[in-house]
Amino acid sequence: MTARNFPTAQDAENAFYEALERSDLEGMMAVWAEDEDIVCVHPGGARLTGQDQVRESWAKIFAAGGRARVHIAQQVAISAMMLAVHSVHENFTVAGESQPRPPIVATNVYLRTAAGWRMIVHHASPAAGQPAPAPRQAQPKLLH
Amino acid sequence: MTARNFPTAQDAENAFYEALERSDLEGMMAVWAEDEDIVCVHPGGARLTGQDQVRESWAKIFAAGGRARVHIAQQVAISAMMLAVHSVHENFTVAGESQPRPPIVATNVYLRTAAGWRMIVHHASPAAGQPAPAPRQAQPKLLH
Repeated sequence: MTARNFPTAQDAENAFYEALERSDLEGMMAVWAEDEDIVCVHPGGARLTGQDQVRESWAKIFAAGGRARVHIAQQVAISAMMLAVHSVHENFTVAGESQPRPPIVATNVYLRTAAGWRMIVHHASPAAGQPAPAPRQAQPKLLH
Repeated sequence: MTARNFPTAQDAENAFYEALERSDLEGMMAVWAEDEDIVCVHPGGARLTGQDQVRESWAKIFAAGGRARVHIAQQVAISAMMLAVHSVHENFTVAGESQPRPPIVATNVYLRTAAGWRMIVHHASPAAGQPAPAPRQAQPKLLH
Protein backbone atom coordinates (compact mmCIF):
# COMPACT_ATOMS: atom_id res chain seq x y z
CA MET A 1 0.00 0.00 0.00
CA THR A 2 1.31 3.42 -0.88
CA ALA A 3 2.20 5.51 2.14
CA ARG A 4 0.21 8.70 1.74
CA ASN A 5 -0.63 11.38 4.23
CA PHE A 6 -3.61 13.66 3.60
CA PRO A 7 -3.28 16.93 5.53
CA THR A 8 -7.00 17.74 5.15
CA ALA A 9 -10.24 15.85 4.66
CA GLN A 10 -10.54 17.52 1.26
CA ASP A 11 -7.16 16.06 0.26
CA ALA A 12 -8.45 12.61 1.21
CA GLU A 13 -11.65 13.20 -0.75
CA ASN A 14 -9.71 14.32 -3.83
CA ALA A 15 -7.54 11.21 -3.62
CA PHE A 16 -10.64 9.03 -3.23
CA TYR A 17 -12.21 10.27 -6.46
CA GLU A 18 -8.87 10.26 -8.31
CA ALA A 19 -8.37 6.61 -7.35
CA LEU A 20 -11.94 5.85 -8.39
CA GLU A 21 -11.39 7.45 -11.82
CA ARG A 22 -8.09 5.62 -12.33
CA SER A 23 -9.43 2.26 -11.05
CA ASP A 24 -6.43 2.37 -8.71
CA LEU A 25 -7.04 -0.14 -5.91
CA GLU A 26 -3.93 0.68 -3.88
CA GLY A 27 -4.63 4.40 -4.22
CA MET A 28 -8.21 3.80 -3.14
CA MET A 29 -7.30 1.75 -0.08
CA ALA A 30 -4.63 4.30 0.91
CA VAL A 31 -7.50 6.74 1.48
CA TRP A 32 -9.38 4.49 3.91
CA ALA A 33 -8.58 4.33 7.62
CA GLU A 34 -6.89 1.12 8.72
CA ASP A 35 -9.82 0.30 10.93
CA GLU A 36 -12.37 -2.50 11.10
CA ASP A 37 -15.17 0.02 11.67
CA ILE A 38 -14.97 1.55 8.20
CA VAL A 39 -18.30 1.44 6.34
CA CYS A 40 -18.90 1.49 2.58
CA VAL A 41 -22.27 1.44 0.79
CA HIS A 42 -22.10 1.36 -3.00
CA PRO A 43 -25.22 2.59 -4.87
CA GLY A 44 -27.94 -0.01 -4.36
CA GLY A 45 -25.57 -2.25 -2.45
CA ALA A 46 -25.47 -3.80 0.99
CA ARG A 47 -23.43 -2.22 3.74
CA LEU A 48 -19.84 -3.40 3.80
CA THR A 49 -17.70 -3.11 6.91
CA GLY A 50 -13.98 -3.53 7.54
CA GLN A 51 -10.91 -3.47 5.34
CA ASP A 52 -11.44 -6.87 3.70
CA GLN A 53 -15.01 -6.28 2.52
CA VAL A 54 -14.26 -2.74 1.36
CA ARG A 55 -11.10 -3.74 -0.54
CA GLU A 56 -12.83 -6.71 -2.16
CA SER A 57 -15.71 -4.53 -3.36
CA TRP A 58 -13.43 -1.96 -4.98
CA ALA A 59 -11.32 -4.73 -6.52
CA LYS A 60 -14.46 -6.13 -8.18
CA ILE A 61 -15.60 -2.70 -9.37
CA PHE A 62 -12.19 -1.88 -10.83
CA ALA A 63 -11.78 -5.35 -12.38
CA ALA A 64 -15.08 -4.85 -14.22
CA GLY A 65 -13.43 -2.04 -16.16
CA GLY A 66 -15.49 0.83 -17.50
CA ARG A 67 -13.42 3.90 -16.84
CA ALA A 68 -15.49 6.89 -15.83
CA ARG A 69 -14.92 10.53 -15.08
CA VAL A 70 -16.63 11.86 -11.98
CA HIS A 71 -17.47 15.49 -11.37
CA ILE A 72 -18.15 16.37 -7.74
CA ALA A 73 -20.76 19.07 -7.15
CA GLN A 74 -22.85 20.75 -4.49
CA GLN A 75 -20.64 19.85 -1.57
CA VAL A 76 -21.95 20.49 1.93
CA ALA A 77 -19.17 20.10 4.48
CA ILE A 78 -19.19 19.98 8.27
CA SER A 79 -15.81 19.75 9.92
CA ALA A 80 -14.82 19.23 13.54
CA MET A 81 -11.43 18.64 15.08
CA MET A 82 -11.32 14.89 14.47
CA LEU A 83 -14.14 14.19 12.03
CA ALA A 84 -15.31 15.78 8.80
CA VAL A 85 -18.52 15.01 6.93
CA HIS A 86 -18.95 15.84 3.25
CA SER A 87 -22.22 15.44 1.37
CA VAL A 88 -21.68 15.57 -2.40
CA HIS A 89 -23.29 14.79 -5.71
CA GLU A 90 -21.22 12.49 -7.90
CA ASN A 91 -21.86 13.04 -11.62
CA PHE A 92 -20.39 10.17 -13.62
CA THR A 93 -19.54 10.34 -17.30
CA VAL A 94 -18.77 6.93 -18.74
CA ALA A 95 -16.62 6.54 -21.86
CA GLY A 96 -18.79 5.68 -24.86
CA GLU A 97 -21.96 7.10 -23.35
CA SER A 98 -23.24 10.40 -24.73
CA GLN A 99 -25.11 11.46 -21.61
CA PRO A 100 -23.86 11.77 -18.04
CA ARG A 101 -25.36 9.25 -15.64
CA PRO A 102 -28.05 10.39 -13.16
CA PRO A 103 -26.39 11.84 -10.08
CA ILE A 104 -25.32 9.78 -7.10
CA VAL A 105 -25.57 11.35 -3.66
CA ALA A 106 -22.73 10.43 -1.32
CA THR A 107 -22.05 10.99 2.35
CA ASN A 108 -18.31 10.81 2.98
CA VAL A 109 -16.90 10.84 6.50
CA TYR A 110 -13.23 11.42 7.28
CA LEU A 111 -11.30 10.80 10.48
CA ARG A 112 -8.12 12.58 11.52
CA THR A 113 -5.65 9.82 12.32
CA ALA A 114 -1.98 9.85 13.28
CA ALA A 115 -1.33 9.36 9.54
CA GLY A 116 -3.48 12.28 8.41
CA TRP A 117 -7.13 12.36 7.34
CA ARG A 118 -8.63 9.07 6.17
CA MET A 119 -12.05 8.00 4.96
CA ILE A 120 -14.15 5.99 7.40
CA VAL A 121 -17.59 6.10 5.73
CA HIS A 122 -18.63 6.26 2.08
CA HIS A 123 -22.38 5.94 1.61
CA ALA A 124 -23.55 6.38 -1.98
CA SER A 125 -27.02 5.98 -3.44
CA PRO A 126 -28.85 7.01 -6.61
CA ALA A 127 -30.35 10.49 -6.18
CA ALA A 128 -33.75 10.15 -7.78
CA GLY A 129 -35.54 13.21 -9.10
CA GLN A 130 -33.98 16.60 -9.46
CA PRO A 131 -31.32 17.42 -6.95
CA ALA A 132 -32.13 20.40 -4.79
CA PRO A 133 -30.29 23.53 -5.88
CA ALA A 134 -27.35 24.51 -3.73
CA PRO A 135 -28.52 27.46 -1.65
CA ARG A 136 -25.06 28.98 -1.73
CA GLN A 137 -21.43 28.09 -2.34
CA ALA A 138 -20.72 27.17 1.25
CA GLN A 139 -17.32 27.11 2.82
CA PRO A 140 -16.70 24.18 5.15
CA LYS A 141 -18.13 24.95 8.55
CA LEU A 142 -15.48 24.85 11.23
CA LEU A 143 -16.82 23.99 14.62
CA HIS A 144 -13.69 24.89 16.49
CA MET B 1 -41.12 23.17 18.52
CA THR B 2 -40.62 21.17 21.68
CA ALA B 3 -37.53 22.21 23.60
CA ARG B 4 -35.54 19.04 24.01
CA ASN B 5 -31.94 18.52 24.96
CA PHE B 6 -30.21 15.28 24.04
CA PRO B 7 -27.19 14.65 26.28
CA THR B 8 -25.73 12.07 23.87
CA ALA B 9 -25.87 11.30 20.17
CA GLN B 10 -27.59 8.04 21.05
CA ASP B 11 -30.35 9.97 22.83
CA ALA B 12 -30.83 12.02 19.66
CA GLU B 13 -30.92 8.84 17.57
CA ASN B 14 -33.48 7.23 19.86
CA ALA B 15 -35.68 10.34 19.63
CA PHE B 16 -35.32 10.35 15.84
CA TYR B 17 -36.66 6.82 15.47
CA GLU B 18 -39.35 7.34 18.13
CA ALA B 19 -40.60 10.41 16.24
CA LEU B 20 -40.49 8.42 12.99
CA GLU B 21 -42.58 5.62 14.51
CA ARG B 22 -45.11 8.08 15.98
CA SER B 23 -45.28 10.23 12.80
CA ASP B 24 -44.48 13.12 15.16
CA LEU B 25 -43.30 16.05 13.05
CA GLU B 26 -42.43 18.37 15.95
CA GLY B 27 -40.60 15.56 17.72
CA MET B 28 -38.73 14.80 14.49
CA MET B 29 -37.69 18.39 13.87
CA ALA B 30 -36.62 18.79 17.50
CA VAL B 31 -33.91 16.22 16.76
CA TRP B 32 -32.44 18.14 13.82
CA ALA B 33 -29.89 20.93 14.26
CA GLU B 34 -31.25 24.41 13.56
CA ASP B 35 -28.84 24.81 10.70
CA GLU B 36 -29.17 25.34 6.98
CA ASP B 37 -26.44 22.76 6.32
CA ILE B 38 -28.49 19.79 7.50
CA VAL B 39 -28.77 17.04 4.87
CA CYS B 40 -31.49 14.39 4.52
CA VAL B 41 -31.68 11.64 1.90
CA HIS B 42 -34.76 9.42 2.09
CA PRO B 43 -34.48 5.97 0.46
CA GLY B 44 -34.38 6.49 -3.29
CA GLY B 45 -34.86 10.21 -2.89
CA ALA B 46 -32.97 13.34 -3.85
CA ARG B 47 -30.76 15.09 -1.35
CA LEU B 48 -32.62 17.64 0.74
CA THR B 49 -30.81 20.47 2.52
CA GLY B 50 -31.89 22.97 5.16
CA GLN B 51 -34.72 23.10 7.66
CA ASP B 52 -37.51 23.88 5.18
CA GLN B 53 -36.83 21.02 2.78
CA VAL B 54 -36.25 18.52 5.58
CA ARG B 55 -39.39 19.53 7.50
CA GLU B 56 -41.51 19.47 4.34
CA SER B 57 -40.31 15.96 3.47
CA TRP B 58 -41.15 14.53 6.88
CA ALA B 59 -44.52 16.30 6.87
CA LYS B 60 -45.36 14.57 3.58
CA ILE B 61 -44.16 11.19 4.85
CA PHE B 62 -46.15 11.48 8.07
CA ALA B 63 -49.27 12.83 6.28
CA ALA B 64 -49.22 9.74 4.04
CA GLY B 65 -49.96 7.67 7.14
CA GLY B 66 -48.80 4.07 7.32
CA ARG B 67 -47.52 3.66 10.83
CA ALA B 68 -44.50 1.41 11.05
CA ARG B 69 -42.28 -0.03 13.74
CA VAL B 70 -38.57 0.22 13.13
CA HIS B 71 -35.96 -2.01 14.69
CA ILE B 72 -32.43 -0.65 14.59
CA ALA B 73 -29.66 -3.22 14.20
CA GLN B 74 -25.96 -3.62 13.52
CA GLN B 75 -24.94 -0.17 14.63
CA VAL B 76 -21.40 0.94 13.89
CA ALA B 77 -20.61 4.15 15.78
CA ILE B 78 -17.70 6.56 15.59
CA SER B 79 -17.75 9.40 18.05
CA ALA B 80 -15.53 12.44 18.43
CA MET B 81 -15.84 15.45 20.68
CA MET B 82 -18.24 17.38 18.46
CA LEU B 83 -19.47 14.89 15.89
CA ALA B 84 -20.80 11.35 16.03
CA VAL B 85 -21.46 9.06 13.07
CA HIS B 86 -23.79 6.07 13.36
CA SER B 87 -24.26 3.53 10.58
CA VAL B 88 -27.34 1.38 11.18
CA HIS B 89 -29.73 -1.00 9.53
CA GLU B 90 -33.37 0.08 9.77
CA ASN B 91 -35.77 -2.88 9.74
CA PHE B 92 -39.33 -1.65 9.17
CA THR B 93 -42.42 -3.62 10.06
CA VAL B 94 -45.55 -2.05 8.58
CA ALA B 95 -48.96 -2.65 10.13
CA GLY B 96 -50.94 -5.08 7.98
CA GLU B 97 -47.89 -6.61 6.34
CA SER B 98 -46.83 -10.08 7.42
CA GLN B 99 -43.17 -9.73 6.51
CA PRO B 100 -40.68 -7.08 7.56
CA ARG B 101 -39.52 -4.81 4.76
CA PRO B 102 -36.03 -5.33 3.30
CA PRO B 103 -33.49 -3.46 5.39
CA ILE B 104 -32.60 0.17 4.87
CA VAL B 105 -29.01 1.23 5.57
CA ALA B 106 -28.68 4.65 7.16
CA THR B 107 -25.77 6.92 7.94
CA ASN B 108 -26.74 9.29 10.75
CA VAL B 109 -24.47 12.16 11.78
CA TYR B 110 -24.92 14.10 15.00
CA LEU B 111 -23.41 17.42 16.04
CA ARG B 112 -22.87 18.57 19.61
CA THR B 113 -24.53 21.98 19.81
CA ALA B 114 -25.10 24.39 22.70
CA ALA B 115 -28.51 22.71 22.99
CA GLY B 116 -27.16 19.15 23.14
CA TRP B 117 -26.65 16.62 20.36
CA ARG B 118 -28.64 17.15 17.19
CA MET B 119 -28.87 15.33 13.87
CA ILE B 120 -27.19 17.01 10.90
CA VAL B 121 -27.18 14.19 8.33
CA HIS B 122 -29.60 11.32 7.71
CA HIS B 123 -28.75 9.35 4.57
CA ALA B 124 -30.92 6.28 4.04
CA SER B 125 -30.98 3.89 1.10
CA PRO B 126 -32.28 0.38 0.39
CA ALA B 127 -29.66 -2.21 1.34
CA ALA B 128 -29.85 -4.68 -1.49
CA GLY B 129 -28.70 -8.24 -0.96
CA GLN B 130 -27.84 -9.74 2.36
CA PRO B 131 -26.40 -7.35 4.90
CA ALA B 132 -22.94 -8.21 6.02
CA PRO B 133 -22.87 -9.85 9.43
CA ALA B 134 -21.78 -7.61 12.27
CA PRO B 135 -18.26 -8.71 13.17
CA ARG B 136 -18.89 -7.96 16.81
CA GLN B 137 -21.13 -5.97 19.11
CA ALA B 138 -18.99 -2.88 19.08
CA GLN B 139 -19.07 -0.16 21.67
CA PRO B 140 -18.94 3.33 20.21
CA LYS B 141 -15.36 4.25 19.46
CA LEU B 142 -14.30 7.28 21.46
CA LEU B 143 -11.58 9.24 19.80
CA HIS B 144 -10.85 11.38 22.79
